[in-house]
Amino acid sequence: MSLDSVLTRIDQNMPDAVERLFDLMRIKSISTDPAFDKDVEAAADWLVQELQSIGIAAEKRLTTGHPMVVGHVDGPADDVPHILFYGHYDVQPVDPLELWDRDPFDPALEDTAAGKVIRGRGSSDDKGQLMTFVEACRAWKAEHGALPCKITFLFEGEEESGSPSLVPFLQENAEELSCDIALICDTGLFQSKVPAITTMLRGLLAEDFTITGPSRDLHSGMYGGIAMNPIRILSKILAGLHDDTGAVTVPGFYDGVEELPEDIRAQWQGLNFDHASYLGDVGLKAPAGEQDRTPLEQIWARPTCDVNGVWGGYTGDGFKTVLPSQASAKLSFRLVGQQDPDKIRTAFRTYLESALPEGFTVEYRTEKGSSASQMSITDPAFEKARLALSDEWPDPAAYVGCGGSIPIAGFFKDMLNMDSMLIGFGCDDDQIHSPNEKYDMNSFHKGTRSWARILDALTR
Amino acid sequence: MSLDSVLTRIDQNMPDAVERLFDLMRIKSISTDPAFDKDVEAAADWLVQELQSIGIAAEKRLTTGHPMVVGHVDGPADDVPHILFYGHYDVQPVDPLELWDRDPFDPALEDTAAGKVIRGRGSSDDKGQLMTFVEACRAWKAEHGALPCKITFLFEGEEESGSPSLVPFLQENAEELSCDIALICDTGLFQSKVPAITTMLRGLLAEDFTITGPSRDLHSGMYGGIAMNPIRILSKILAGLHDDTGAVTVPGFYDGVEELPEDIRAQWQGLNFDHASYLGDVGLKAPAGEQDRTPLEQIWARPTCDVNGVWGGYTGDGFKTVLPSQASAKLSFRLVGQQDPDKIRTAFRTYLESALPEGFTVEYRTEKGSSASQMSITDPAFEKARLALSDEWPDPAAYVGCGGSIPIAGFFKDMLNMDSMLIGFGCDDDQIHSPNEKYDMNSFHKGTRSWARILDALTR
Repeated sequence: MSLDSVLTRIDQNMPDAVERLFDLMRIKSISTDPAFDKDVEAAADWLVQELQSIGIAAEKRLTTGHPMVVGHVDGPADDVPHILFYGHYDVQPVDPLELWDRDPFDPALEDTAAGKVIRGRGSSDDKGQLMTFVEACRAWKAEHGALPCKITFLFEGEEESGSPSLVPFLQENAEELSCDIALICDTGLFQSKVPAITTMLRGLLAEDFTITGPSRDLHSGMYGGIAMNPIRILSKILAGLHDDTGAVTVPGFYDGVEELPEDIRAQWQGLNFDHASYLGDVGLKAPAGEQDRTPLEQIWARPTCDVNGVWGGYTGDGFKTVLPSQASAKLSFRLVGQQDPDKIRTAFRTYLESALPEGFTVEYRTEKGSSASQMSITDPAFEKARLALSDEWPDPAAYVGCGGSIPIAGFFKDMLNMDSMLIGFGCDDDQIHSPNEKYDMNSFHKGTRSWARILDALTR
Repeated sequence: MSLDSVLTRIDQNMPDAVERLFDLMRIKSISTDPAFDKDVEAAADWLVQELQSIGIAAEKRLTTGHPMVVGHVDGPADDVPHILFYGHYDVQPVDPLELWDRDPFDPALEDTAAGKVIRGRGSSDDKGQLMTFVEACRAWKAEHGALPCKITFLFEGEEESGSPSLVPFLQENAEELSCDIALICDTGLFQSKVPAITTMLRGLLAEDFTITGPSRDLHSGMYGGIAMNPIRILSKILAGLHDDTGAVTVPGFYDGVEELPEDIRAQWQGLNFDHASYLGDVGLKAPAGEQDRTPLEQIWARPTCDVNGVWGGYTGDGFKTVLPSQASAKLSFRLVGQQDPDKIRTAFRTYLESALPEGFTVEYRTEKGSSASQMSITDPAFEKARLALSDEWPDPAAYVGCGGSIPIAGFFKDMLNMDSMLIGFGCDDDQIHSPNEKYDMNSFHKGTRSWARILDALTR
């Protein structure tokens, strides 16, 4: 059987695959620091060569920032999907360097109590993950002489610095980059164990505002008692955002929120999410969300409202008996389903302004909102990929949610009309963005095998 | 009649009195800036000579900071009260200098639409006010050869820099400085018009605390919905401090609050306080205090709770989807009557801690509290002084409150067992602590006459 031979070749090639990954990891492609601009470009060049070495027509494409790497390879038939694969080749800075146990750019295999790990910056985020797909393609090509479908590769060099060139690049090359489905490898195993396809991503709406009451700061000896304090008003507004059950009170906030389908709910129950450990690890006891929702729903499938920052009055050392003129806050809403960021912004502002005493004003510093992304798992590709993953790993694969926003999936959907399967093999303890980043050898090896299985499943 | 001749002499001497005040105002006695230490000392020396010139045994007394000036003069009889007079000879810095219309230390008489004013730093706070009493004594001495009672003078040179030497000096010289009653000249006319004796000063209790929830800052994509946010808890605590009628909700907070005596309440009604202008001048509409209390009660006779500062999470430019580990606030309570700062601190902490979810902690940075001061106006000296003031000014004098804390009155009470009469002639537009400080010639002249009348009334 053709898949078996590819898997066997992947197993045999692992030592060489690790060496190739080390080559890429040695390039200091820190995208946030201009001192490393040449290194970022070198990593792009390395990837172009790497793709070309397995017969993919690849080139470095310049942007106003760091370059993109784009590759194309033809497939044998027209009745199989055209796949886009996305990863990023830039890495986070390595500070504080003194907390690393070895040079972050001198990667090595290390034996640990939990097994072999690949240590070094970018091992997990995202060079190691990106290379799982490349290595799967290499083995497939070697075994069969050609890849099983048309594949477009898109490697970005600015993911860690906010992807400033991504949207313009997708706009300018929409036709070239539009495929049937996207595979994105930048996520992890659920609880470091269960293979997962992320199909729900929450949207995000942010509000940043300042309330003004008195026209200047007042002395509480002269005005204390008679003057309304903007911090008191702001506190009432913020405290009133949730009721006693943890639900958000802003009228209309839940419009467009959808109930979880029963099959997804059953899958999530089966994940046995250990919320006590999840919270206990950060010093918390009880879930804070809506009381009638499971902890996983609270993170993945329910909308939230959180205050990300608050400030007003005197905040330095010692004391100042000031009644401040202003008080400010930054809020964000995580959105799900069909919630409309614009409608929620309007609803929140109506709520806020109805709480202002006569004469008080509010100034908003508007931030852009984004809707939630939900993939169409009725597309048979999703179930094929899920079963392929289940074949590789001890646990059956699950469709999961993601409480955060992964903008690339939204861009693919909105700009290229393309659903994404977010599949990755990172573990919770990979220490991405931190010193001593690692990627389990198990993740790299079984990740590569997983992609071979998925390519096989999607094109059979 | 002896008083009349003193008043006539005051009127005749006014030009010379203004020149003497100008001499004192030319000395740059800025106590907060070490560059002016010699000037502060020069002002003390000037006052010693000034008091000696009218027969008062005065000397400069060294402290670890700026010197005190202490003077003593004997009175003719034992059946009249021994009076202590307090003022301060240091002044505020003059920045921003470019906003002054003339050199702050080159005083002058100016004609304005509202009458003649003495312009320059310290004209109102407190050199001009201090000299009203000295000039009254000078005229009395010249007219009668002796002052009408024993008087102790205490002039401080550190009032504008927090009076660091005052408490130790009072402790070390308690016997020497204890008199029957203190006169303090550092306040103003009520609404720039009505002569007033301040008899109630609110106390102050401050709390500065930090609430900790999660053990580190969290990403709202990973934890939003499930993790309790300390800003949400803090907002609930702060929002819950007042009920819908403006009353403070902390259990036991009103223990020791006393109702206003009927005669004082009637006097305050007679003041026709224009709270709409008072609030309108700072951009506010409605009084924020307890709804069943008059605006003057809210400022002078009712306790308050105000948030002076609040901070937590990300407060810089742009956005960060952080769920912070901590949130902090600075609160202060203005106290009245017999409210006990220690009991209120305990009551507030009990209230706060009962609102913390399991696992949350709070850390306090304790600030000292002070009780309210209330003078014993049953002492006949108060009513004598009030009638004397009423004889001098177009409006009858009133007993008033002060929403702030004037520490010196509390120190005299607590350390020297001496009530204080706070009487001053400043106007609301004197711009003390600001550029273009002034003192109305009317304040200086009628202020001097007022003290002659009060000396007469207290010793007749």
